[in-house]
Amino acid sequence: MRTISPLQQARSKYEPKLPQALRGHVKAVAGEATQSVDNQEDIKKLFPNTYGLPVIRFEESNTPVASEAFNVGVILSGGQAPGGHNVIAGIFDGIKRIHKDSRLFGFLMGPAGLINHKYMEITPELMDEYRNTGGFDIIGSGRDKLENKEQFDKGLIILRELGIKAVVIIGGDDSNTNACVLAEYYKSINAGVQVIGCPKTIDGDLKNEQIETSFGFDTATKVYSEVIGNIQRDANSARKYWHFIKLMGRSASHIALECALQTQPNVCIISEEVEAKEQSLDDIVTYIAQVVADRAADGNNFGTVLIPEGLIEFIPAMNKLIAELNDLLAHEAEAFSKLDKDAQLNFVIEKLSKENSEVFESLPEDVARQLTLDRDPHGNVQVSLIETEKLLAEMVKNKLAVWKKEGKYTGKFGFQRHFFGYEGRCAAPSNFDADYCYSLGYNAAELIASGVTGYMSSIRNTTRPAAEWVAGGIPITMMMNMERRHGKMKPVIRKALVELDGKPFKTFAQYRDKWARETCFVYPGPIQYFGPSEVCDQPTQTLQLEQE
Amino acid sequence: MRTISPLQQARSKYEPKLPQALRGHVKAVAGEATQSVDNQEDIKKLFPNTYGLPVIRFEESNTPVASEAFNVGVILSGGQAPGGHNVIAGIFDGIKRIHKDSRLFGFLMGPAGLINHKYMEITPELMDEYRNTGGFDIIGSGRDKLENKEQFDKGLIILRELGIKAVVIIGGDDSNTNACVLAEYYKSINAGVQVIGCPKTIDGDLKNEQIETSFGFDTATKVYSEVIGNIQRDANSARKYWHFIKLMGRSASHIALECALQTQPNVCIISEEVEAKEQSLDDIVTYIAQVVADRAADGNNFGTVLIPEGLIEFIPAMNKLIAELNDLLAHEAEAFSKLDKDAQLNFVIEKLSKENSEVFESLPEDVARQLTLDRDPHGNVQVSLIETEKLLAEMVKNKLAVWKKEGKYTGKFGFQRHFFGYEGRCAAPSNFDADYCYSLGYNAAELIASGVTGYMSSIRNTTRPAAEWVAGGIPITMMMNMERRHGKMKPVIRKALVELDGKPFKTFAQYRDKWARETCFVYPGPIQYFGPSEVCDQPTQTLQLEQE
Repeated sequence: MRTISPLQQARSKYEPKLPQALRGHVKAVAGEATQSVDNQEDIKKLFPNTYGLPVIRFEESNTPVASEAFNVGVILSGGQAPGGHNVIAGIFDGIKRIHKDSRLFGFLMGPAGLINHKYMEITPELMDEYRNTGGFDIIGSGRDKLENKEQFDKGLIILRELGIKAVVIIGGDDSNTNACVLAEYYKSINAGVQVIGCPKTIDGDLKNEQIETSFGFDTATKVYSEVIGNIQRDANSARKYWHFIKLMGRSASHIALECALQTQPNVCIISEEVEAKEQSLDDIVTYIAQVVADRAADGNNFGTVLIPEGLIEFIPAMNKLIAELNDLLAHEAEAFSKLDKDAQLNFVIEKLSKENSEVFESLPEDVARQLTLDRDPHGNVQVSLIETEKLLAEMVKNKLAVWKKEGKYTGKFGFQRHFFGYEGRCAAPSNFDADYCYSLGYNAAELIASGVTGYMSSIRNTTRPAAEWVAGGIPITMMMNMERRHGKMKPVIRKALVELDGKPFKTFAQYRDKWARETCFVYPGPIQYFGPSEVCDQPTQTLQLEQE
Repeated sequence: MRTISPLQQARSKYEPKLPQALRGHVKAVAGEATQSVDNQEDIKKLFPNTYGLPVIRFEESNTPVASEAFNVGVILSGGQAPGGHNVIAGIFDGIKRIHKDSRLFGFLMGPAGLINHKYMEITPELMDEYRNTGGFDIIGSGRDKLENKEQFDKGLIILRELGIKAVVIIGGDDSNTNACVLAEYYKSINAGVQVIGCPKTIDGDLKNEQIETSFGFDTATKVYSEVIGNIQRDANSARKYWHFIKLMGRSASHIALECALQTQPNVCIISEEVEAKEQSLDDIVTYIAQVVADRAADGNNFGTVLIPEGLIEFIPAMNKLIAELNDLLAHEAEAFSKLDKDAQLNFVIEKLSKENSEVFESLPEDVARQLTLDRDPHGNVQVSLIETEKLLAEMVKNKLAVWKKEGKYTGKFGFQRHFFGYEGRCAAPSNFDADYCYSLGYNAAELIASGVTGYMSSIRNTTRPAAEWVAGGIPITMMMNMERRHGKMKPVIRKALVELDGKPFKTFAQYRDKWARETCFVYPGPIQYFGPSEVCDQPTQTLQLEQE
């Protein structure tokens, strides 16, 4: 019986690359005071102790800085992303380099570990088992949110007990917002605990002027592109199926866009464009069906369609329908529950406004049924359960059947559907993510040593070789603005959606008609950890285009 | 816009390794006359011209053999398997080495290309584009069967027109059986065309005393193991889902078994064992639910379950139900079609025998509905449409709900489902498949030069380095016996199912209880084409265990 695979064995010896500035003695250089991206007065009022801090940049130094040993806590927050273990390894090695007796504690299963005092010390032996591996299993992750004073105070008890000087929170935009709230609170009560954030998410929606990319996006999109490429090669060999492929990423379409740039599918839907152009479900179905029909006219009854997981929520008409359904089913719950299934459908069709009723009737029966039956504990429609890839494929099939009768389409349409998400979140990090994550962690250790709080660990210039990467820290307040969340205005890090005037989308838009009609599939193949640099060390197309 | 990926670019330079015996001049050494594995008299009668031929082994020789240029045709038959392009490259290089003016023609979209005279010449430039790539897209594949004299005679017209001396058919057990029927026919009419088969199938069910493995199995199972491993790492990090993973392979469970040996999941169902032990659907559900409950008792509400695609057809009780359903729906078609959907279900329940009615009623409603509604053009139930992974997950969920009420289970059960098939069939071949396929093709060229027909290209000793591989040819009749197919006795190559007393299954069976209760996940990671040999060049566990 094996314990670890040969690849994991070989990969454990990989030494992640650091920016030159972090390789020896380090000097922190502070810039000018900063402002938040918007709503400066509001943010300043909410973060009196952590607002307006300078950007910090680390530079090489010839002078060693004497430091005492210190203890650090680390938390993995939210969904898994490749490279989390390397962030922890970077922190571990960073604090040990600063003082060999420094210690690292991991809070278990996410923020709940801090609140409930569940933790373990990361020993050198344990750390070595997890270097360059995927997953968050070293200490686990969780989705609890650090949001209120009671949690912060409970956390402080264990932090003091363990003599912890700083907490590093590895998470997405919400978790980093909360890291800043925690930093502000601990500073306001002089708790003596610093808080540092690290930008994590495979979705790629935590990025801005200061943060070039979140870790995990590189690896996850490469895994998805591998399997999409393989499916495309199959489609092009068998020449009989359209493959509808849904990709993880609910709140932005960066994953789908990056995979499209890597694999050149026939169709890729971008949710942000659907919303901006106010497209209906029928618009999307018609667009896909037209691509299918055009290719069929060339004798090509096969192809690929990429669909972002969050699409439905970006279709204005679907949003309206869902909002009215939620209202209707809440108000008419009793009458509704007495009906049998078919009568329920008719009941909904009668009660809905004309506009929404038409949208509802255009849906395949199983989706319509699901929208009325499967509701969450709050009585709301569960949009995330909708099998969007199946929905679109069936609606395209129905439209093509109509077109066939009208003589507008003469091909054959068969489809297969796929959903890729869990396949990529815990892959072993690519060289890029292994280096980037290790650097983020190592850099976080230097931020701790420099005494700051409310900063996000920042590594920039990432399309260049690692030696040239720029290391430092960004005040989290600098990335914030005020947004309405659950009915209240809150200070949050602005989520990065796909920008329709950005280079990645414009590049895609430039080629998509060609990709739709012709067969321009690219087959990226699996992530390579060894071998030629042009194969192993390329960052994402998104990052390369954005940083050009 | 890219045309090919950096990996494909780098990989195009890979030079597949050949057995030492094929690297220079070659001498064919014939063994004793052979017998078929069973039904010798019947097979001999059906194959008077190709029965009893000797096994051929190629050895190194110092003497060049003078040969004239000759033309060869190649056909890809059936489902895609990684390495098909390398078989063609091997044939191409092999016949050119024998004589530089030899030419290779590819028949398009499978056997239909031969019958309908659709072909293209494989030029050096075209060949170079496809070396070491996945897919069958160089000439396409198809599922038409070469079975009757009319097809053979039509094929012969184009073979003569192109001056083709031999046809190589790359396919699974059925295609190789048909290759032998074609060889026999052409020999019987002195057509002057040899026919050579090559063992292809990701399913791994074309193997026997003479053929160690079919190509593609190595690469496909490595791709599936990669994504299963990634999912397992996710399961172990998030600790909240059971992942039910269906794997391609209808007629045998080799793929599921190999993936289990690679990844050590909590559960892997082997169809052949289910059949041998006459397990019911409820037996399987109970087994999985018990594993879930046992792990829940340890606080582990997560895990993985591997399911072979063909499982349903190996459950004796389901087979009986399906047979009766097919009969019933054929005889009662008219009465049935007049009922609404709910009445149809009740109708079926009433008309079925008690035993089958009970099985039918135990199924989740959507599966029961699908069994009665989705029938193929012949009116038969479409077993392949059953989403077995969802069926099992839902039945396990229902059973756990009952156990919870009875106090026998206290955990939480959430599931995700996956089906992997198309992701692996067209992956770029692993080093093993790249070398094995190229050798099979190169070896086929030598078989042609040696003048034989009705042989399968054979490369043995494949767990050793390629230089030590044994090259030669096996008379296809040697692998045949008589089996009932569609009501008639036919000569066929015996399909290799998972042997319950074979080393791969016994190894799995030895560890499965431990894997079920504990978390022994292994994360194989993606196929590596460069790097340490222990990472890049390992054949499958199945092959290693079988050849030990």
